[in-house]
Parts: sequence; structure tokens; C-alpha cells
Amino acid sequence: MAQLPPVDIFDYIVFGATGDLTMRKLLPALYYRYRDGQIPDQARIIGTARSPLSRADFQARAEKALQNFVKPADLDPDLARRFLALVHYVSLNGAEAGSNWPGLKDLLAEAPADRIRVYYLATAPDLYGRICENLSTQGLVTDQSRVVLEKPIGTDLASADEINDGVGRFFPENHIFRIDHYLGKETVQAVIALRFANPVFERLWSSDAIDYIQITAAETVGVEGRGPYYDKSGAMRDMIQNHLLQVLCLVAMDPPGSLEADSLRNEKLKVLRALRPITPEDVAVSTVRARYGAGEMGGKPVPGYLDDLGENAVSNTETFVAIRAQVDTWRWGNVPFYLRSGKRMAQKSSEIVIQFKTTPWSIFPEKPAANRLVIRIQPDEGVMLTVSTKDPTPTDSVALRQADINIAFEKAFATRYPDAYERLLLDVVRGDPVLFIRRDEVEAAWRWADPILQGWAENKSPLETYPAGSWGPDAARALLAERGHRWHEDMV
Amino acid sequence: MAQLPPVDIFDYIVFGATGDLTMRKLLPALYYRYRDGQIPDQARIIGTARSPLSRADFQARAEKALQNFVKPADLDPDLARRFLALVHYVSLNGAEAGSNWPGLKDLLAEAPADRIRVYYLATAPDLYGRICENLSTQGLVTDQSRVVLEKPIGTDLASADEINDGVGRFFPENHIFRIDHYLGKETVQAVIALRFANPVFERLWSSDAIDYIQITAAETVGVEGRGPYYDKSGAMRDMIQNHLLQVLCLVAMDPPGSLEADSLRNEKLKVLRALRPITPEDVAVSTVRARYGAGEMGGKPVPGYLDDLGENAVSNTETFVAIRAQVDTWRWGNVPFYLRSGKRMAQKSSEIVIQFKTTPWSIFPEKPAANRLVIRIQPDEGVMLTVSTKDPTPTDSVALRQADINIAFEKAFATRYPDAYERLLLDVVRGDPVLFIRRDEVEAAWRWADPILQGWAENKSPLETYPAGSWGPDAARALLAERGHRWHEDMV
Repeated sequence: MAQLPPVDIFDYIVFGATGDLTMRKLLPALYYRYRDGQIPDQARIIGTARSPLSRADFQARAEKALQNFVKPADLDPDLARRFLALVHYVSLNGAEAGSNWPGLKDLLAEAPADRIRVYYLATAPDLYGRICENLSTQGLVTDQSRVVLEKPIGTDLASADEINDGVGRFFPENHIFRIDHYLGKETVQAVIALRFANPVFERLWSSDAIDYIQITAAETVGVEGRGPYYDKSGAMRDMIQNHLLQVLCLVAMDPPGSLEADSLRNEKLKVLRALRPITPEDVAVSTVRARYGAGEMGGKPVPGYLDDLGENAVSNTETFVAIRAQVDTWRWGNVPFYLRSGKRMAQKSSEIVIQFKTTPWSIFPEKPAANRLVIRIQPDEGVMLTVSTKDPTPTDSVALRQADINIAFEKAFATRYPDAYERLLLDVVRGDPVLFIRRDEVEAAWRWADPILQGWAENKSPLETYPAGSWGPDAARALLAERGHRWHEDMV
Repeated sequence: MAQLPPVDIFDYIVFGATGDLTMRKLLPALYYRYRDGQIPDQARIIGTARSPLSRADFQARAEKALQNFVKPADLDPDLARRFLALVHYVSLNGAEAGSNWPGLKDLLAEAPADRIRVYYLATAPDLYGRICENLSTQGLVTDQSRVVLEKPIGTDLASADEINDGVGRFFPENHIFRIDHYLGKETVQAVIALRFANPVFERLWSSDAIDYIQITAAETVGVEGRGPYYDKSGAMRDMIQNHLLQVLCLVAMDPPGSLEADSLRNEKLKVLRALRPITPEDVAVSTVRARYGAGEMGGKPVPGYLDDLGENAVSNTETFVAIRAQVDTWRWGNVPFYLRSGKRMAQKSSEIVIQFKTTPWSIFPEKPAANRLVIRIQPDEGVMLTVSTKDPTPTDSVALRQADINIAFEKAFATRYPDAYERLLLDVVRGDPVLFIRRDEVEAAWRWADPILQGWAENKSPLETYPAGSWGPDAARALLAERGHRWHEDMV
């Protein structure tokens, strides 16, 4: 495999290291970066959690994580062994001042004081402030220290402010890395390249040429065991307020002056602040929320959301959201941005659909179909442009046929597509926050989401039900139909 | 195979029926249309030529033509037998009033007088007028009669006028079908569909977004046995004045109001008339002419043009032309149209290359390459759009890679692509002249070509030499380089 230039030597200290995220995402991502030569052998990955494990115990768990979540063909035993030698463990409750901080301090003190330190908080967000306070009290926040915050950052503007204040007391904003793994996805970053490296697209990128835009993140999974946790959140907080709004920002923003972090984030912020408010009174018009009922996935019956929650469950939480958003800028005039996310949908599919306007006048017997650009985020990352071309059948007229011009990235480049975390984890080491969320972005996103959540809490729009394995409730289709629009799966 | 709606019953009378064009193109094309159900069994194909052949003789030649020029898999013996039953022959010198006209008259009189008649002139163009006069004298020009003229229509404006006058005395303009088989090519017609059925392309179709355009028709063959004939013509008369200018018209024209013949042809005429004149004094600046010298094709040595002509040959004829043309319209401002055609070139390739402007500003470490749309006319008919996208290698910046998004028509549609003549031959029967050249177009094209030919005749620019198997003389590269442009094969 290609050896890439290594980053500087670092210590990665993960809080909540025995959790799912560390095992499924962080360790495999670091392994791949190690494999490609980007992680120096002197770097350390230090897990911390309350469990009283030895270093060997944790290394054994880490080894198992690699076996489970790295593709067997990519897992070289010798390489894995060398990678696991970077892994350490400190049994520590980061939220408690009296916990085993000396253990962590001693371990960190083995390295030069100016080594880059990344504190990765993979714990419950309400602990972030306390962990940072303890880090500070213990003298562990150096000039070279950064902190990474996992979502959710709050459940509304007020709670987000509380978390951001708690962390911000001990870390300057430019050392706080709020992760949104959607920004680490290759195809999401490809939006920046497609738009700003290709005049053929950017020239079309406005209400002049575009009719409407769809951003969908559909999952086939239900809440399964995570029901009680998920029920406090719902699709809006889990997906829309963060991931889908970030994607919307990249699609809708004006060209930044550079790829410097603040240049890009200023443009994203402009978009977030230009989102037309949806008041609690508007939710019935501009939003659809729903939860899945019993249905079928892949031919097998699956229970509904309430059954997934447990017996006698009561809930007002949505597992599906569709929203007609508007970006009130010169560029986007009256172009609706349809945002949609749901669990137990017909297909796993995250994509951006740019639906162009139809021809102003048709010289052909049939009106040509509108052009469409689909940016597939997952699976099958790629870009597809639908065009009308001449049907070669030798009839007496010029008949049209639709054809897709396709680029499947992984195939085209004959290269493995890195997981989102791989890029992001090392960007923190590099100190490059361009793909991380600035505090004012979080705030602007909540400022837009809060009134919608409030409207739903007040039941200003009904909580619909859709069968598991479908594309959501009929109301979601109606939301587009009233403007003569259609979801991608309904387009012929 | 699909059965298409048949055209009306017709008699197709071919003058010069023993020639190459009839055997290679006309008979195979009519066979394919018969196969698809478009030709009724009562239709007749009547060959005429001076050779004293029986009907059976000519049918045998026709059978051989099918065997040689129809794909074996497409040649059904029973179908071929039924097709050959449509074929007749009259031994007749069309240019002589005293020839066997009664033979043709009797044969035509077997059909109702109002049957559609197509007189296809595949003879030397200087006979067109006399053949038409004889047809008229013999009372064979009915209201339902059309005449098809093969190129070359003259060698300059004056001789073209003479031919057109000669034919025009006996046929009204709307019954005269000047064939340019390039217009029958699927991908050439696809230009109309691409532009006017796809706002994503038409919105980019002007000097706002386009840097320059190339239209190339490169052949690998030399003149071989046709030397003495070709030497009277040359690349300008053989390719540029007709085929390439027609392609240029479709690329450059404004949207027609409809697909009616005159609506489209009026737009093409506007383009031809907007071609900036290249005076004899300008040829040294805006044109390059050359002839091939000895060289290599596919690893084998081949002789140069003069050797192909014969011993002690003297010639001032070009086998290669490159021209920087300008279309003086609002849409095309200062966009050069580079036209190029040559024999004994490195590859057989006819294509249109739309080179877009680069990004006005780059936020990426490297300046992105310009987008490019390539419309391949032959071989491998298709459309290819070159875009820059994100390189997935997880480095510390957003690196770009070029990717081609491709549509290969034949593959995409899983259908046979008909030969250009198939469409055109039946369009004559249908009486649809949309893909044929109107007289004023021929005139405008010669009006532009004549001063260039005059400049060359006066040797105002040197006749260069290029090695057979190359992309032409260095001067052709220099013609673009002086504006910072490159031919497609030189683009990385």
C-alpha cells in the first residue's frame, strides 16, 4: 500500500474507550492510517474508561475490534501487532476529580511535554464539561492539547450552550474539534471538489438552473436495543440538525475564498443563518414527522417502533423526518431543499439529488425529462448525471431516451475509500479544523431546529406512522407533490 | 428485431448503381431498413448504369454486396432473398437523351403514377443537370418525385451554382435532397438532443463558459487507388467544406424554433453566414495545409501522398487541413472553432471537443483542469465529460483527480447503431429534408471556403508535409499553441 507522509508524534487519549464507537470506528480508523504510514511508531493511543482493565486486557479488546471491523484482507498480523503496541490503557472515571488521574498523568509524563495531545470524548455529552475541568485541574491541558467532542452536542440551543460553555472554559475554540463524521465522508467532501473545481457544475448551481434539491439519509435498521436512548433524541436531533444540515451547507454555500477552516466555516454559517425559520405554527405546512410501525424488511416481518421500545411504551419521538427547508439567499431564491431521514426505510441510502429545471421550450415530440445530478454518499459512493439523448431507433423523428452518465468513485479510482473517521482523526492531530463544526454553526443549527421541535412537542403536526420497509408516510410524498416535485425513488 | 412502422411504397431509382457507394452503403442500408419492417414489399429498388446487365446479374451483385457489407449475424438468407426480389435493373446512360429511357419508363409505368419516386444520383456531379433534364424530357418528374444529390456539389461557388441551377431547372428546391452523410450519423444528431433536451449543457453553450471547440475528422487511410480523383479535390473540398462545416453548424447554432426542416436549416445558415471570412491574405495566419509523406501505419511503412499518386506526380493538393474558424455571433464572441481533417493520421477518429474555461479562482492547492465534453462521432459513438473530483487518498489537503464520466451509446442502449445512410435514405421517401443541405447552405459554405482555396492556390501559406501515421504537421499544433490551446490528443 502507498506510504503517506506521517503526521507528528501524538498521544490520543480516548475517554469512553471501552464503548462501541472506539471499537467500531476509532481503532479500525487508526489502524488503517498506521498501515498507510501516517502514524509514527512513537505515537500512543491511550484508552481510558471506568472498567478496571490491564493494558493487556485492553489490547486484547482492541485486537478483537480490528478482527471484527477491519476487512480481513487488510489485516496483516505483523502490522496489527505493531499497531497494538501503541495501545495503552488507564482505568479512570474522567468525570470524577478524585479518580485515577495520577495514572494518566504519569503515562503522559513519559512523553515530552510539547507532544500533541488529543483528548477524544466518546462519553455522554453531559460529562464533557467535567472531564475538561478535571483535565485542566490536573494540568493536562497544554498548548498542544486538543479536545474532540462527539455528537450529540445538546438537545437544543440551551443545552448545547451549556456543553460548549463547559468545554470552552478550559479549551480555546480553535482547540475544540466538534466531529460530524458526515464531513469525513469522501463523497461529502467531493461536493466541494465537484462544485469549485468544475465550472460546468458551479455555473448551474443556483435557482437559475436548479428546480429543487433533496438530501436523504435513509437507514434500514430500526432502534433495536438502543430504543430507550434513541427515544430521547429522534431523527431531528440524531440526523437532521447535524449531518443533513452540514451536507446542506456544502451544497448551498457560496464559494469560499480559500480552504482555510474559517473561510469555509464562515460560508457554512451564512447558509445556516439564512435558513428560513420554521415556526411552531409552520410545522404542519413544512414538515412531516413519523415513526415506523410493524412491517417487512427483506421479506421478514419486523416490529414497529413502540414494540422495539418495550412493553407499554409511550413515545412522541419521530424516527422519520421530512422537511421543506428554504435558504433565503440571492443564489437560492425559491429553491426548496427537501431534507429527509428515517429508520426502517426501504433502502439504506444517503444521497444528494440536484433536480434541474426542464427545458424552457421543447422542439422534440416529447418534453425532455429534467436533468438530474445525484451525489451518492453511501453506499456505492459516486456521481450520476441523468441526461436525455437521441434514441438511435431509426424512426421518422428525433425521439429521446434518458441515459445516466456515471462515475462510481471506488471503481474509477481503483482505490479503497477510507472511512470518514480516518481522515478526521488525523486532521485533529494536524490541528486542521476545516472539517469540524464551529460553535456558532452548532448554535445556528439549533436556532433553526428548536422551533420545529417545539411545534412537534406541542403536536402542531401529527406524528404519522409508516410501515417498516417503506419510504415513509404518504404525507412525505404529499409534501413534495404540492409543488409538483417528487422524491428520487418516485422518479421514473 | 423490432418492427418499425413502414414508410409509403416507393421506387428508388439509383443512377450509378454499379458503383462503390451503391454496393457499400445504399443496398446494405436499405436491407437493414427492410429487415426492421420499414420498407413495404411492394417497394422497388431500380439500379441503372451503363453496364449491360440483366436483372439477375444485378441482383447477384446486390447479393454479394449484402454478403460483403452486412454483418453476417444480421444477414438472414430468407430475408435477403425477399429483399433482393425488390431489386431491378435498367441498363441506361442517364446523361444521354437517346439512351434506354423507354426501359426505365416502362418499368416505372408498372406502378401507379402517384407512387413516390426517388432519383438517387450517385454519378459524377457534372452529370446531375443532364440526368435531371432527361428525366424531365421523358416525363418522369412527377409531383411525388425527389432527387438526391451526392457530394461533391461543385469545387467552388461557381461550379456549385452551375450544378444547382442544372438540377433546379427541373426539380423545386424542396424536392432536392443534398445528402451529407455526416448528418445521418447518430452522434451528430445527438448533438441536437444533447443541446436542446438538456439545459445543463445548453446553459453552458456559449463563450461565457466555453474556451474553444475542436472538430476533428481523422482517417488512417491514404488515397490509395483513388489518388488521381482525390488530387482534384483535397481535404478542404472533401471534408471541411461539407461535413465539418455541417457539424460546426449543429454545435454553434442558436436553438431552432422547431425541428421542422427550414427552422433548423435557417439556424445552420445563420452560422455559415456568420463565419468570419478568411481572406487569401489570412490563410497564413488561420490555416494549415499539408500532405502526408512516407511514414508508418500500425508498424508498417507506407508511402507518401506523391508516391500514392504515381511516378513523377506533381501536386499542390492538401490531405490535411487545420483551420481556426470564428463564428461572429453574440453567443460565440472570441471562441475559436478549430477544424481539422486529414488522411493517414495516427488514429481514425471523428469527434467534437468542447473545452470549457477553467475556474475563475481556485481554492485548491493545484489549479483544477478545465472541464471537457467530448462527443465521439466515430468510432465508439458516445459522450464523455471530464470532471475534477476529490482524490480519496487521505492526505492533509483536498487533492483533485480527473475522472471521465462516460456514456458509450451502443453499450448503454444495448442496441445496434444504424449507419448514417439508413436514416437518410428513408427520410427522402418521407419527404423530410431536415437532415439535408439546402442550396443556400451550400452557397454560404463555398463563399467561406473559396478565398481559403484561392490563398492556397496562390501559395500564400506553405504546403507542409507530415509523416503518415502522425497527427499532422507541427504547424497544426502551433496554430493552437499561439492561443495557449491544445489538440485533444495533446491534453493530458
